Amino acid sequence: ADGATLYTAKLCQTCHGAEGKAPIMPQYPKLNGQNKEYLLAQMKDIKSGARSNGMAAAMKAMVANVSEEEMAAIADYLSQVK
Amino acid sequence: ADGATLYTAKLCQTCHGAEGKAPIMPQYPKLNGQNKEYLLAQMKDIKSGARSNGMAAAMKAMVANVSEEEMAAIADYLSQVK
Repeated sequence: ADGATLYTAKLCQTCHGAEGKAPIMPQYPKLNGQNKEYLLAQMKDIKSGARSNGMAAAMKAMVANVSEEEMAAIADYLSQVK
Repeated sequence: ADGATLYTAKLCQTCHGAEGKAPIMPQYPKLNGQNKEYLLAQMKDIKSGARSNGMAAAMKAMVANVSEEEMAAIADYLSQVK
């Protein structure tokens, strides 16, 4: 599946807003235009527990249902959003 | 001191590039336009050790020399960079 479809299907927009541009709280990061390697590393680290600070607990529950291949597609998509 | 001056004085650009726009490696995040609350929380969490994943070890050494007041000024500055 493509990253844009997965972004919505995996409910990323629930917290990060449409296209990663409008987080619902300022404690959440904007994602659009971010380096894809960085984005993928954060998703993997939150899933594994290597990153657990701040609001990562909320993210961990969401990313439990996202495979590494899907994470990579989402990261690639977000990195290309202006 | 103002955030833009601190951004350079504290050597943030060494890894994140001018104005936080051009990290030297894709494993580092872009910072321009990011939510200031998120940015401040990450700096504090890396300094305290609450966030230690990925390249945080490199960042921890840098942020050891930055006060919370200075972090807040840097976060405010970066959040306003287009």
